Amino acid sequence: MTDKTEKSITSLPNINPDILARSGRKKRRRYSVSEYVDGIVSGNRTILSQAITLAESSLPGDYECAQEVIEKCLPHSAKSVRIGITGVPGVGKSTFIEAFGLHLVSLGKKTAVLTIDPSSNISKGSILGDKTRMEKLSVHPSAFIRPSPNSGRPGGVARMTRESIIMCEAAGFDTIIVETVGVGQSETAIHSMVDVFMLLLLARAGDELQGIKRGIMELADIIAITKADGDNIQAAENARITFTGALSLFPPHESGWKPRVLTCSAKQNKGIAELWDTIQEYLIFVKQSGYFEEFRKRQAVIRMHDTISECLNNSFYNNEEVKNLIPLMENLLYEGKITSYKAALTLLEKYFKR
Amino acid sequence: MTDKTEKSITSLPNINPDILARSGRKKRRRYSVSEYVDGIVSGNRTILSQAITLAESSLPGDYECAQEVIEKCLPHSAKSVRIGITGVPGVGKSTFIEAFGLHLVSLGKKTAVLTIDPSSNISKGSILGDKTRMEKLSVHPSAFIRPSPNSGRPGGVARMTRESIIMCEAAGFDTIIVETVGVGQSETAIHSMVDVFMLLLLARAGDELQGIKRGIMELADIIAITKADGDNIQAAENARITFTGALSLFPPHESGWKPRVLTCSAKQNKGIAELWDTIQEYLIFVKQSGYFEEFRKRQAVIRMHDTISECLNNSFYNNEEVKNLIPLMENLLYEGKITSYKAALTLLEKYFKR
Repeated sequence: MTDKTEKSITSLPNINPDILARSGRKKRRRYSVSEYVDGIVSGNRTILSQAITLAESSLPGDYECAQEVIEKCLPHSAKSVRIGITGVPGVGKSTFIEAFGLHLVSLGKKTAVLTIDPSSNISKGSILGDKTRMEKLSVHPSAFIRPSPNSGRPGGVARMTRESIIMCEAAGFDTIIVETVGVGQSETAIHSMVDVFMLLLLARAGDELQGIKRGIMELADIIAITKADGDNIQAAENARITFTGALSLFPPHESGWKPRVLTCSAKQNKGIAELWDTIQEYLIFVKQSGYFEEFRKRQAVIRMHDTISECLNNSFYNNEEVKNLIPLMENLLYEGKITSYKAALTLLEKYFKR
Repeated sequence: MTDKTEKSITSLPNINPDILARSGRKKRRRYSVSEYVDGIVSGNRTILSQAITLAESSLPGDYECAQEVIEKCLPHSAKSVRIGITGVPGVGKSTFIEAFGLHLVSLGKKTAVLTIDPSSNISKGSILGDKTRMEKLSVHPSAFIRPSPNSGRPGGVARMTRESIIMCEAAGFDTIIVETVGVGQSETAIHSMVDVFMLLLLARAGDELQGIKRGIMELADIIAITKADGDNIQAAENARITFTGALSLFPPHESGWKPRVLTCSAKQNKGIAELWDTIQEYLIFVKQSGYFEEFRKRQAVIRMHDTISECLNNSFYNNEEVKNLIPLMENLLYEGKITSYKAALTLLEKYFKR
């Protein structure tokens, strides 16, 4: 099984829409589009939550309604700072985001945390899990925590997260944190929806690097070495110096920004303010150069093309004849009996002749 | 203009097929499929050349014929070592490949060099250019140098290079070098067609890193610091040590191989043999672990899916209604008046309703 086929499989619908429909319908009161929009814009977080659920719903009616809501939220959006945070399990992401989020709300920021967890699904629904993970932040009146489900709807998790960002912004959240596990394909998607991308690493990097997808380090604008406390302070500082040196050898960021490495301890609340200051520095840098605006515009166009590509692929790989033929083609390829091109062509002919 | 749209534009046909047809037809004698295959398998490099030209041709007849030739070459292929070499202009790629290739032929290897130059096109045709670049290698009886044109045929440069590899292998070449400029999108494509991937860097890396696409360094199995001669020896050695340290911080390669950094001087023919020895070491490592075979099989499947994706995209972006609507959608996106998803959906509706 290859990366590619795994990708196509995970992007297929894997949730029974009936289950979603039932669970969704029971809990949710139905609002009109303008009720949703008014509720969101007035900062009503119950309605915000329900609108996000609506956008995640597999029911066609819900879905179209959500799209109207989102269109109407657009003029109220785009005014926040969008921060992507990634790192492998064990790096202390939740603890970090709790400390970081509490710092932000203490500065008067209205902070929304959107979690992308590729391993979660409807049965494991981790809303409660996330709120437990961030006990203090989740109950803070200026914070909003929301996990994204991993659904197979067109545009998938990337679309939903993007739409959640728009609605959170319309609801007045000025700082959006998009959290993801640094192991999957969601990082490049995240990179196309945030303004600044932060990678959390442990000082003792050996094992953890096993879990990080290659290419991610080169995307990071800021690296935070976590758990820089107790016996770990010196190791964290050493890691900071080492990574700073290593990053200087990487091809530079398009923005001209030189990625920074900082240490922090969420437990002792050290280095958290400095990380926020560094983000501020980054934002000033890219806003002055015009890169910030330009990048946001390009992100929108990239997302359009990504969505198109994803929909084309979904349409192709959901075709019954194609589905039935793929195992045969893969076997012929494995045995070296056919070229990749001929195999592709055979499948494409089936698809276009439907 | 975004990366994505640039990609889709460069993958559109940009060559007038009539020109190709005329220029192709004048020069080329037509063989039957079995004449091509027999010629290739017997090591006739004139026929090999013409078969590659056939596979690159835009004429439907040529194309189908080439596909038959390639299918029949398959049982004779897959026995070589495929080496990808990349680096920005100025790093000394041609000089290096000449020295490296001459070393290989001196060991009795039959060496084919396939060049992917995204900037070349029919009018700038660089066959002569490449042969001039590698004066000694190009006239060596055990070497074969062939540039790939940058064409818009389905599957594009990646497909053609892959097919050239198959035909070269069937013609008895046991070492295939695929050379590309390290600035474009061809590197990830190359990575899916070679066994080992080598990045050439200069000791004074600042300027040159500007030209390297982010993520490339993390793909390299071997980094060669070029021009390690004269005043540059110490700087090259320092660079070797620095990069070795930096690479140890990267997420490890899937193969378990720890990327190596070596210095070399093509001018003084130093370090060239060592690079080949390192490649040998790499090959022993991945063959013993089974990764070599597994990776080749996965490459074939990945290429099939990549080809499918590219054909689906071509079909979409060549649709007249889609083409006409894209500028409007991009403008609406730039002005924040539409979501990426809605824009994508609008285009997809046009496409599927055709």
